[in-house]
Order: sequence, then structure tokens, then C-alpha cells
Amino acid sequence: MANIVILGAGVMGSAFSFPLSDAGQDVHLVGTHLDREWIEETRTTGVHPKLKSKIPDKVVPFTHDQLGEVLHDNPDLIVLGVSSAGVDWAIQQLGPLLKKPIPIIMLTKGLAAHDDTLHILPHVVRDRLADYDLNDVPVGAVGGPCIAGELAARRDSSAVIAHPDPSLLDWILTLVATPYYHVRPSADIIGVEVCAALKNFYALAVGYPKGLLKKQGEASNGALMHNLSAGLFTQALAEMSYTVDFLGGTLASVHGLPGSGDLYVTCQAGRNNRMGSLFGLGMRYSEAKANHMADETVEGADLALGIGPTLEHLLEQKRLDRARLPLAVTISNAICHDQPMQIPWTLFYK
Amino acid sequence: MANIVILGAGVMGSAFSFPLSDAGQDVHLVGTHLDREWIEETRTTGVHPKLKSKIPDKVVPFTHDQLGEVLHDNPDLIVLGVSSAGVDWAIQQLGPLLKKPIPIIMLTKGLAAHDDTLHILPHVVRDRLADYDLNDVPVGAVGGPCIAGELAARRDSSAVIAHPDPSLLDWILTLVATPYYHVRPSADIIGVEVCAALKNFYALAVGYPKGLLKKQGEASNGALMHNLSAGLFTQALAEMSYTVDFLGGTLASVHGLPGSGDLYVTCQAGRNNRMGSLFGLGMRYSEAKANHMADETVEGADLALGIGPTLEHLLEQKRLDRARLPLAVTISNAICHDQPMQIPWTLFYK
Repeated sequence: MANIVILGAGVMGSAFSFPLSDAGQDVHLVGTHLDREWIEETRTTGVHPKLKSKIPDKVVPFTHDQLGEVLHDNPDLIVLGVSSAGVDWAIQQLGPLLKKPIPIIMLTKGLAAHDDTLHILPHVVRDRLADYDLNDVPVGAVGGPCIAGELAARRDSSAVIAHPDPSLLDWILTLVATPYYHVRPSADIIGVEVCAALKNFYALAVGYPKGLLKKQGEASNGALMHNLSAGLFTQALAEMSYTVDFLGGTLASVHGLPGSGDLYVTCQAGRNNRMGSLFGLGMRYSEAKANHMADETVEGADLALGIGPTLEHLLEQKRLDRARLPLAVTISNAICHDQPMQIPWTLFYK
Repeated sequence: MANIVILGAGVMGSAFSFPLSDAGQDVHLVGTHLDREWIEETRTTGVHPKLKSKIPDKVVPFTHDQLGEVLHDNPDLIVLGVSSAGVDWAIQQLGPLLKKPIPIIMLTKGLAAHDDTLHILPHVVRDRLADYDLNDVPVGAVGGPCIAGELAARRDSSAVIAHPDPSLLDWILTLVATPYYHVRPSADIIGVEVCAALKNFYALAVGYPKGLLKKQGEASNGALMHNLSAGLFTQALAEMSYTVDFLGGTLASVHGLPGSGDLYVTCQAGRNNRMGSLFGLGMRYSEAKANHMADETVEGADLALGIGPTLEHLLEQKRLDRARLPLAVTISNAICHDQPMQIPWTLFYK
């Protein structure tokens, strides 16, 4: 029985407590300052209000001001489930409280742009914790096609866990081994993380046909727009391959659960897909966000805003080949420069 | 302006006449003996009854007994759009009538099992036409994510054309160049054709969660089964890679439009997917086919029946590795041996 702290009680952090708890671990679920109401309601009712699921009995909810108390006994593993915007906050909380390096795995997805290139978040966390004399903290990540609500409903879900330390990785896999959570190891933390971030970004485009179909309607023969969706899906995978390779990951991740699997699930449902459908209706990002998704986090759009300038810089410097990323450029222009989304067909499949 | 004969006036053969005609070609659409009613109705009304679309004015419909007349002037290209079960018939018709080898591209999808292995249909057609003193007929193929009704509605569709003769391939691409049909060349005719056949086969499994969801319903938190679908999708792609490589194709086809793109579109809609959902409801193949899809062609099931014994033989001989094809074995057992479909999770993602 391992002692696990999950920091971040959003839907994914909270859902991850299910396999951990079902596999017999002691789980401390610590909300961020933004999760206080969810934690309080979970404490009172036993049900997480966003996940709409009864949290397992052995999972104990805590508010963020209790983090020191929870970390006091040196947990075996920390699971970071904050939003990508919350990574800085999480480091600032953990840094002063950790008495020694403790293994971390991240559910948080995103890419950080600095020093003229893109970095995966596990590397950011590892490097930033060094500021607190916590050196070489082994930080891994979870990828693959896993909608939180389905995991919490204990429905068959697949995932990949990548970790820089192979023996720790084997141990982490045993911590979540349950009949409904099909988890595989990966040594390619860069590939897993780049796929996890980019799938949200590309889902903004693969959602486009849904809106266009709503606008144009079925054809007179009943035809929908699946061919268009599939073309965008394939182009997205090709561009993910190019970018994963550029950043030092391996293509097997793109072709496996972290890439094709997660992009598939992200294109079936979710907020990024919904934003894409608003583009298909003819809206620009500013209008779509303000009038239709003002209070919602659209991770792919946040990622575009975060990495767009660096992406443009890398393209201008010709370190990235514009001919290989026509859909990324289209999405980036739609989000960062509020341009209407138009599919650049003639530039595809090169 | 090229003179094109399409043999087979089902939905895909007929839909392919749209880009050809729109790009300025003379198109003769010749039905098989099974298409007679469709051809007659198309002649009378101008509308193809299965495609529910008005055929372009320059496309002239013919019945199969007119094939000799149509071939008399030596067309520039023959497009083979018969069903996979109709390939033998098509060869028997074309063989005696062709006065010289004429380039062919195939819309027909499938694999033939003989000589203890699997063969792509363009090679079968090429080899069988040699029996009629038509030697080395250059036979290519069309792959990629393209639902016929959407192509006929002139909605953005992507495809790959593979052909053994590079200069013919360039010319064929110009024959269908239209603003809505985004076609790319490929030199990998084996990869394109194996993907095109197997996507129907694997869609039988990726459709499974739809039926299971109908049976089990939403979870109490509203969760569906997208994670399950995505896991199956990824496993299918991995097994397609293994099989394409075994049969001599290249992996770029699996990762591009013929593989990931076509599997994506096939998993969104269609008869193979519907058969899969009947498995998810708990039915066996015999019951599902007899009671729910008796009059419909389920291409993936027909493929399984055709190649199942050879697949089993190759596995027994250890020429194919059973550990790499757990989903194929599951599907084959469900179709060929009427076993209930159960997802072999522990065997996945190896």
C-alpha cells in the first residue's frame, strides 16, 4: 500500500484517484485554491460535483492549505493534476514543503515556450524544483486516450505512463493496476507529452467540420462531412509526427495511444472540439470565446496562445519547416491573430 | 479529355464519376448485371437511386451487356468499381473484350487468400488478365478516407492513388483534379490496398462500444465509452502496421490517409461499424447478420470469412505472430467461428 498525494482536484486529478484507490493505495486528494468548493462539497456529500461521481471511500479530500500536513509524512508518489496554468503555482507550493525529492507523475498537459523553443512540462517541473534544492526529481507523465468521467465510471480506459526512471516506472504501473485501466509503460516522455499537448491544439481543427456541417446542412443526398474530418485528422497526425521528432520524441508515441489514440478520443467530444465547431460556423476566435465559451477553459486555444509566438519564431528561423505544418499555422493564426479558419488543402499531405 | 470506363455502378463507382466528369473527362458508367435497375433508373431520372445524387450530364450510364460497345474504342483508363465478390466476374467480362492492355485503377477493396498467403486485388486482376493474353496490365488503386455520398455531394474528400507506373500515376491524378477532391500519389500499392481492406475488418471491433453503450447505458455520471473506442482504434492501427509490413507495404501508408484516415472515417459511420455495435449488444455474428443485416453487404465480415482460414494458417505456422494480432484473432473468431466478441485487453499494446 503506497501513500499517494494528488495535487489538483479537477476532473482528471480526481478521476485518477479511482484506479489508485481500487488498487489499494492510500490517496490524499488535495485541491488547489481554485478547487476549494469542490473539495468541500466532496467532503460533505462524498460526490465530486464536477466529476459527478462518488469518490472512493479510501480517498481523503484536502484543501490546499492542508498540503503541508499531507506532505509531512513524505508520500511515495505525487500526482500533479493541476491545470497547465497552475503549474507555476504548484511548484511554488511544493518547493518549500518537500523535504526530499519525491517521484512525481503529471496529469497536467501542455508545453512551455522559453529560450526560443518548446519544453515539456515534466522537464519544467524538474528544473524549477531545483531552485528549492530538490535536485533531479524524477518527473514522469500520463498520456493516452482517457476522458476523466469514463475513468471515474470505471469504464475501460487505456493510458501510457512515461517516466525517466525505469524501475520507478514499473512500480508506478503496479500502483494503478486495475481491471478497467489498461496502462502501458513508455520510455518516451517527450513524445508522450508533446502528443498530449498537441492533440488539444489539433482538435480545434478536427472539430471544424461539425460547425461547417451545421451551417451548410446535409447535402441533398444526405451526405455529412466525415471525409473532411478524416482528412484533418490525418494531417494532424502527420504534423504531430513532425513536431514530436523535432522536439526529440519518438514516432511510436504518435502512432500509439498518446498520439492517434488520444487525438481520436479528443475529436469525438470535448471543449477543444466544440471551439473548432464554432470556427466551422464561421466565427473568429474572439467572438467564439466571448459569446459561447467565456467561462470555459479551452486547452488547445490556451496552448496556441502560449506557444504561438515561439512557433512563429521557429518557422521564421526555418528551424521548423512551414511546409510540414500548414494546419498548425492555420490554427495558430486563428487563435493568436483572430483570423478566420480556412483549410489550406493544397498544402496538405506533403 | 480522356475516355474513361467505370465498371461497377454501385455507390463508389458512381461517385467516382463526379470528379472525373467535373475535371472534363468523358465517362462511361457501366453497371454490372446486379446494377441493372440502378442504371435504368439513372437513365430515366438522371438520379442514381443508391447514391441519391444527380449524375453529371456528361456521365453516360450503360448496362453490362453494353460493355463490349463501350470498350470498342479502347478507353484511356478503366476504373474497376465492382464489389470484392465481383472481381472474378469483372475479369471474365474484361478479359475477352479488351483488345490490348489498358491501365486500370481499382476502387474495389479486399484481399484474396490463396497459395497460403494474402494478395492485394490489383495483383489478382493483373495476374488473371494474363490468362487472356493481356500481359502486365498496369493496375493501380484508390485508397483513403472517402465516403461515396460525400464525394458525390462534392464535399471535401481526400484520397491516395497508388499505381505501379509513375508516369501513368501523374496522368491519372490530373484526370480527377477538382477543387473538392484532394488526391495524392503513392508508390505503395500494397500498403494502400492492405489498409483499405483491413479498415473494414477492424471497424467491426471499433464499432463494438456503440452497442455496449446501448446495452449498459450512460454511467451515473454521464460517462460514455469513447476511451474504449480509442483503445480499439489504436490497437487496430498497430495491427494494420504489422500486417502491412508483413505483406510488403510501407508504414507511411498506415499512418497516412489509407490507414489512419480511412479507419477514422470508417469508424464514424457505415455498415461494418453497425455490425460491430451488434456485437457490443451481445449478439453473435450469425444472429446479427440473419436478424439485422440480412440483405446488406458487410465488407469487413466478408473479408474475415475470405481470409480467416489463411490468417489462422499463417498464425499456426508462426509466419504471423499471434501476440501482434490479438484483435484480428478476436474479430476472425467472431465472424468465422461465431464466437462472442470479447476484448482481449491484456494482450493489447505489445
